[in-house]
Amino acid sequence: MNKKNSLILALDVLSRDKALELTEQLVDHFDAIKVGYPLILHAGLGIVEEISSISPVIADLKIADTPNTNRLICEAVLGAGADAIIAQAFPGKDSLVACADCAESFGADLFVVTEMSHPGAEQFMAPLAERMARLAVESGASGVVAPATRPERIRMIRSIIGDKLIISPGVGAQGGSAGEALQAGADYLIVGRSVYGSADPVAQAKELAAQVEQSRRSN
Amino acid sequence: MNKKNSLILALDVLSRDKALELTEQLVDHFDAIKVGYPLILHAGLGIVEEISSISPVIADLKIADTPNTNRLICEAVLGAGADAIIAQAFPGKDSLVACADCAESFGADLFVVTEMSHPGAEQFMAPLAERMARLAVESGASGVVAPATRPERIRMIRSIIGDKLIISPGVGAQGGSAGEALQAGADYLIVGRSVYGSADPVAQAKELAAQVEQSRRSN
Repeated sequence: MNKKNSLILALDVLSRDKALELTEQLVDHFDAIKVGYPLILHAGLGIVEEISSISPVIADLKIADTPNTNRLICEAVLGAGADAIIAQAFPGKDSLVACADCAESFGADLFVVTEMSHPGAEQFMAPLAERMARLAVESGASGVVAPATRPERIRMIRSIIGDKLIISPGVGAQGGSAGEALQAGADYLIVGRSVYGSADPVAQAKELAAQVEQSRRSN
Repeated sequence: MNKKNSLILALDVLSRDKALELTEQLVDHFDAIKVGYPLILHAGLGIVEEISSISPVIADLKIADTPNTNRLICEAVLGAGADAIIAQAFPGKDSLVACADCAESFGADLFVVTEMSHPGAEQFMAPLAERMARLAVESGASGVVAPATRPERIRMIRSIIGDKLIISPGVGAQGGSAGEALQAGADYLIVGRSVYGSADPVAQAKELAAQVEQSRRSN
């Protein structure tokens, strides 16, 4: 992943045609495109191959299984051309190391979920976020996923993970501010429907890129 | 899922042809067939449709995302014909309820992971197993997944979930005893490679069915 404008597109659509149309339209405005299981289940793993031929792909599978199953999932999606995977930390170190080792063998990145922004994440995940961030570092991950809606949490995670990467969803639709998230320590902002669901996705992407640029200058 | 002999086959293979061959060979000896992402990623969601036309299918996806993404994943796999899904509890109640609601709308079952048997599961999951079992009940799940390798944990989970179902992996390959797991409260035993990887899978399945029958009589 080459850092151009610090923006990742979350392609939360279900059809192959829509996914490819948006990829073609928006590829120049994003450093990577994030896809998840809903699209992959509907369109097949071939969609990862197709998008990967156009843009770096982050496979956001929230991988959360045993070490062996985690490895098999990573092999499948990295083998299809993804440049990065996202895994849950919750199943523990051996499960995470299986993902990290597989990512390394493909020259790919592993991002670890330390916290999520839906209400249910307060129940079990939020109290463990710091331990999970430490585990991400110990397991050899490239970075973590942390919510842009809570800049103070990004700051805390940054203090734990040193120079590892932070990718942050929640700007736009969920009310997170691009500038605040970046100033708190996010490396990449993940945006989705607020861009491709707008009347003019390209204009929206450019507007976000301008906010990123402004935030960089004021640092 | 009709309870015939309390056995579920974990079909942990990667190829469509092998999956269908084993399904045809073993369908009469199991109440359901459990498939996971490694097979679905390699063979496509069509494999769920194909196996579902032969046997009830449990889609063991360890679903672990936001409520909306969980719902989209459930809709995809239940729409393809699966009779049950397996989800992680740790993303919290709203995520789990999204799976339970979707399962209900398809007349399908939701099983919730409360604990896993790999070493890493001791780190975050084991201390939360009881709370996650309670959450499974509150969220409207049909039952939970609990390791046959730890009958004392099955007993504890049983005391929490009342008459909900317990499905238990770990008999055979991981050293769990069929009789002990059933007597501790498991409703279904999940077995995989120890059956289909053996020299005579059908004989192996019959041997397990005999153990189940013996355990029932001694109760």
